[in-house]
Amino acid sequence: MRKIEHIGIAVKDLNESNKLFAKLFGNPPYKEEEVASEGVKTSFFLNGPNKIELLEATNENSPIAKFLEKKGEGIHHIAFEVEDIESEIIRLEKEGFVLINDKPKNGADNKLVVFLHPKSTNGVLIELCQEIKEK
Amino acid sequence: MRKIEHIGIAVKDLNESNKLFAKLFGNPPYKEEEVASEGVKTSFFLNGPNKIELLEATNENSPIAKFLEKKGEGIHHIAFEVEDIESEIIRLEKEGFVLINDKPKNGADNKLVVFLHPKSTNGVLIELCQEIKEK
Repeated sequence: MRKIEHIGIAVKDLNESNKLFAKLFGNPPYKEEEVASEGVKTSFFLNGPNKIELLEATNENSPIAKFLEKKGEGIHHIAFEVEDIESEIIRLEKEGFVLINDKPKNGADNKLVVFLHPKSTNGVLIELCQEIKEK
Repeated sequence: MRKIEHIGIAVKDLNESNKLFAKLFGNPPYKEEEVASEGVKTSFFLNGPNKIELLEATNENSPIAKFLEKKGEGIHHIAFEVEDIESEIIRLEKEGFVLINDKPKNGADNKLVVFLHPKSTNGVLIELCQEIKEK
């Protein structure tokens, strides 16, 4: 794992939270993107080598809608950048970590992603992500 | 703000969690440190330009003991590195953010720290930290 790629924060209202985090960082989000398969609208802020992703639910079955209902607004996950997601999956499964999806899927911001189940990681939802390279 | 300096994770048992995160990162913590004034024992893992801090409560009045009781194990705060904590405090107060302590205090890992109240930051406990330089 090379660095914290981003931290994902669940918010009720993306527009309002964009304004708030723009004040915090002194810069607006560099992009917004909808991931229909996950039921989320996202925005991304740059912070040096790291990013902050804000996530708003677009339907009531979205994982973010369920998170907001249960826990309210706040940090939803940490994503670590990996060079080779397939080999990291094999390594971590051998170490006893439980994956939510064991095959990488397409996430926001041009990434292949998998999630580790919080029950195997001290209650922390951890994402691994690998940049999708042009062929 | 220059980068995510670290993410703080509240844990029940630092020794057990050190083993878990050592498996995740493939490396043990590079240091452990007690901050008596905050009622915490901490350990730090390096991850490229970022760190992960694990926090265990050392007494029942510790903020970490209260967090664990209310929310269970999981992400407790995000810390951003700043170059000049005093000027960031002034800037953020002008922007309407609420500080928990408005004077920097000594934190773990040789840092001056302040915390922003989660009620002004979408439920996210945010720490600003500045490296203490030798005089």
